[in-house]
Amino acid sequence: MDTIKGMKRTCYAGSLRLDDIGREVVLMGWVQKKRNLGGLVFVDLRDRGGIAQIVFDNDVSKSAFEKAEKLGSEYVIAIRGKVFERQSKNSNIPTGDIEVFAEEIRVLNESQTPPIYIKDDDEVGEALRLKYRYLDLRKPKMQKNLMLRAKVANVVRNYLTDNDFCEIETPFLIKPTPEGARDYLVPSRVNPGKFYALPQSPQLYKQLLMVSGMDRYFQIVKCFRDEDLRADRQPEFTQIDCEMSFVDENDVMEIMEGMLKKIFKEVLDRDIVTPFPRMTFAQAMDKYGSDKPDTRYGLEFVNISDVVKNCGFKVFAECAKEGYSVRGINVVGEADTFTRKAITHLEDHAKTYKAKGLAWMKITDEGVTSPIAKFFSEEELTNIQNAMGAKTGDLLLFVADKDSVVYDSLGQVRIAVADKLNLADPDKFNLLWVTEFPVFEEDEENGRFIAKHHPFTSPMEEDIDKLEGDDKLKLRARAYDIVLNGYEIGGGSIRISDAKVQEKMFRALGLSDEEANNKFGYLLEAFKFGTPPHGGLAFGLDRLVMLLAGAENIREVIAFPKNQNAVCTMTNAPTEAESNQLEELSIRVSLEDKE
Amino acid sequence: MDTIKGMKRTCYAGSLRLDDIGREVVLMGWVQKKRNLGGLVFVDLRDRGGIAQIVFDNDVSKSAFEKAEKLGSEYVIAIRGKVFERQSKNSNIPTGDIEVFAEEIRVLNESQTPPIYIKDDDEVGEALRLKYRYLDLRKPKMQKNLMLRAKVANVVRNYLTDNDFCEIETPFLIKPTPEGARDYLVPSRVNPGKFYALPQSPQLYKQLLMVSGMDRYFQIVKCFRDEDLRADRQPEFTQIDCEMSFVDENDVMEIMEGMLKKIFKEVLDRDIVTPFPRMTFAQAMDKYGSDKPDTRYGLEFVNISDVVKNCGFKVFAECAKEGYSVRGINVVGEADTFTRKAITHLEDHAKTYKAKGLAWMKITDEGVTSPIAKFFSEEELTNIQNAMGAKTGDLLLFVADKDSVVYDSLGQVRIAVADKLNLADPDKFNLLWVTEFPVFEEDEENGRFIAKHHPFTSPMEEDIDKLEGDDKLKLRARAYDIVLNGYEIGGGSIRISDAKVQEKMFRALGLSDEEANNKFGYLLEAFKFGTPPHGGLAFGLDRLVMLLAGAENIREVIAFPKNQNAVCTMTNAPTEAESNQLEELSIRVSLEDKE
Repeated sequence: MDTIKGMKRTCYAGSLRLDDIGREVVLMGWVQKKRNLGGLVFVDLRDRGGIAQIVFDNDVSKSAFEKAEKLGSEYVIAIRGKVFERQSKNSNIPTGDIEVFAEEIRVLNESQTPPIYIKDDDEVGEALRLKYRYLDLRKPKMQKNLMLRAKVANVVRNYLTDNDFCEIETPFLIKPTPEGARDYLVPSRVNPGKFYALPQSPQLYKQLLMVSGMDRYFQIVKCFRDEDLRADRQPEFTQIDCEMSFVDENDVMEIMEGMLKKIFKEVLDRDIVTPFPRMTFAQAMDKYGSDKPDTRYGLEFVNISDVVKNCGFKVFAECAKEGYSVRGINVVGEADTFTRKAITHLEDHAKTYKAKGLAWMKITDEGVTSPIAKFFSEEELTNIQNAMGAKTGDLLLFVADKDSVVYDSLGQVRIAVADKLNLADPDKFNLLWVTEFPVFEEDEENGRFIAKHHPFTSPMEEDIDKLEGDDKLKLRARAYDIVLNGYEIGGGSIRISDAKVQEKMFRALGLSDEEANNKFGYLLEAFKFGTPPHGGLAFGLDRLVMLLAGAENIREVIAFPKNQNAVCTMTNAPTEAESNQLEELSIRVSLEDKE
Repeated sequence: MDTIKGMKRTCYAGSLRLDDIGREVVLMGWVQKKRNLGGLVFVDLRDRGGIAQIVFDNDVSKSAFEKAEKLGSEYVIAIRGKVFERQSKNSNIPTGDIEVFAEEIRVLNESQTPPIYIKDDDEVGEALRLKYRYLDLRKPKMQKNLMLRAKVANVVRNYLTDNDFCEIETPFLIKPTPEGARDYLVPSRVNPGKFYALPQSPQLYKQLLMVSGMDRYFQIVKCFRDEDLRADRQPEFTQIDCEMSFVDENDVMEIMEGMLKKIFKEVLDRDIVTPFPRMTFAQAMDKYGSDKPDTRYGLEFVNISDVVKNCGFKVFAECAKEGYSVRGINVVGEADTFTRKAITHLEDHAKTYKAKGLAWMKITDEGVTSPIAKFFSEEELTNIQNAMGAKTGDLLLFVADKDSVVYDSLGQVRIAVADKLNLADPDKFNLLWVTEFPVFEEDEENGRFIAKHHPFTSPMEEDIDKLEGDDKLKLRARAYDIVLNGYEIGGGSIRISDAKVQEKMFRALGLSDEEANNKFGYLLEAFKFGTPPHGGLAFGLDRLVMLLAGAENIREVIAFPKNQNAVCTMTNAPTEAESNQLEELSIRVSLEDKE
């Protein structure tokens, strides 16, 4: 094998253009393709910048030509040569106007035949891609994703730094807090029998930084949750984490809108309009059945409970009581698109979200076609059509149930209809704030209240009295989520900064004062020494980058992700530990408990 | 308590200058000090930007005046007022030319008397500072340190990004590699009985990124080592981690010199000269007895083994054999500074580094004064003086022993002498490359070779044959450390990129092929598919920032450090875990093994 001694790369292969003609260049990269044609050897040399065609001509250099003839796929080479205009141009690649006639070649390393092809449209399964991730990452699309991710992080950092935010690193080995998601634990060797946790977020540290007067903090930081994995979850994920003092909701939202505007401009060259629309949680549920609605298309819910409260169709009429509703969506002009079979398919979908059924009506020239039409009077049908704004050719879909079931199931039907009709324009980026979230949700299993965001979220001022009353579910939070095309990409709140309110919050969550003190005593203590009003927000970087890259799942924008069993198949992590390691940590594996 | 509703901070208190006179400002921060004087209330308001004097005058606003009278230390306030020129200026603070007459004040939060004073020269012990870190971080110096740290990180990121480096996040939950330092382990719940490790560095991932063609990678990233803590060690620490493909040592050093030049310019406004001096490991040991010499002062070693090989002083003469030496330093003109007692003190210091003694000679007008002078002939004494470049008034100090003991003990004596004489100019930044490190060190305890840097470091080309020979300790590595004022602030190497050489390296380290495969099989596999020549470097950010900040230990530049027992006394981490958590993780605490 040759060395690069005395050779220095002049530029990326993919950067060469007509302007470079006549230039002497040194390129280094991988053999994408080699072919012999008309007594010449043509090599596509690939590097991070793209691909350029290299030509080896026996008349230019006999030794280079002979070496080039022996090249295989993915060999690593360095070439020195001159840029020429191509005879037959290739408009499919950016360097298609030129080619480089090589005067020298060095073979820096050889390659066995790789187990996956190095091209974007290779259809190999994800298991193989993850096992050979270092080859998968040679694909131009994956490299583009990683570079886009780096660019987003860089834009974010510079924007926040320019706005007086100070990046501060918070610890990774912290105190376990058995609240919210499951912690990853780390046994301490020096303190036998004790454990650190990996942070689920830097929440408490960033609040303490506000107590310390650091005033505007940010961090792009790994966080950890030991949850069962879904398609878009990873055991470790990255947050853009921000916190500010002396602010209210509007200040936080304004600065974050500026950040997103900057990201879209610098990364995608797209202008997005600020301020973003805002919607309360109640409005979002009422209109879309979701706190993260995709607003690229309509299909908004209409609540017809009042219209049908006395109708002859019992299923509908009974849902006029409190906490229940009948809601519908009007799929304008698509009555003919949805066959009975297609509607049954939607109904099945609704049922997986606990709906008992999906009622439908088609508005035809002959009137309403529907299996349930017979239960309604003509007037009732007309009233329904009016309420739904329905005209001939429209399809109406209804769910009647508890509000929570209606939201869930009809919300999913809405998404499925939009998918079928391709209503979600992939080129559109709809950003939206959702505000006034409930402070509490009911944990029905354990019969208690849990914090919808987290226990440090401040209730709205006008609701704060309810913290000790019976109306807890109506308590609204000074919390806000930012939604992009149906994904929650970030969320935050104004925090509690009064030790007394914080204590009440812990009590409302069912923590005794002693428990609260054991877990969060240092925060309550800190709050006694002059805590400024403060609030912040955290973005999920993985998901944001996924959406910016137009990728289908977050593993496409993470260099070395885990699979759905939290395993890295490339390195085979996790593995058994050596017994002396465990002994030093004062722990033992105890499998029998589980089996 | 008041809210900030309708109020928006206009600027930091510390930013106000004469130019601002007449300006209406809104400031928010903490009460540093309050005093009543001549019917007025004066408040020093402190925020991240500094301190400004606020004046409350009953005639300007009665209600504000009355509220101000009740303020206590560390209360959080917002004030609206107008900037005036001060009558009696205070040249000790940047805002000393102005004061703000307050028209409105809001008390945003109260404070109990804090357990530590919020001022730089508070002499409270570190234990209390760490327990109340959120108060300790209110000190201007600590805030300055954190801001300096953020600035360093920002300069680094922008420099590397401008130079085509792509920031890529590598995983935190990785495969344990029981080599080098001790891993922190993380039990996997989903894979019972198996463990992840927290990374000691992203070494293998960054090399795999080079295999993937990402070509120029960097990351500012937390790393973890479960070692017993020293003054300048933390369980988690931050690395500036870089790797490049298609480069040799000079390329890496050049780009890193540019980075340091930029840091010093932008952070300290200091011009440092590049390229930095270079010294081989052998030269550094020979001259300073250290691979991280402080070159701000001389006191260089002189090897007088040849001069004394036949002298009458047995201790010296016997050290002429191979692997032993007699080395001295000349403390020019300081013979009178060092009393017998001071020299005894130095000797004791030398003995803690295994020296049997510290020989000394003072050159006086009457000749050589020394307890060992009698063992030498006049000619021998003259020869020694000549070799040492000694003149009247100089003090000569010698250690005779195995080279390794001479290096260690005389190196420490050199530092102690420099400390006593204040030779290390705190305003001087001496950067230095140390190169050609040995590949192996002997692990005398276990009778085997271990890698001085790590097993992925490439041997020098001309030495590569020794990898399989008996002369392993003479094998030099393509490794380089960067040294600043006696601290190693970074280190790196050109890596092995040939699977066969890597296999030989593992064998040389005593790993069987099976062990090597179990631990590093994926790397050996990756190397078969076209690995480019590559190398890199990692800086210790904590230590670099410590030196730039002129701080005494790294805890001064870390927001929330652990103490020497790896405990966070603020939060009380680590703690006992709940038994159901451990059960889910299939582990048990087993303390009896240790006690």
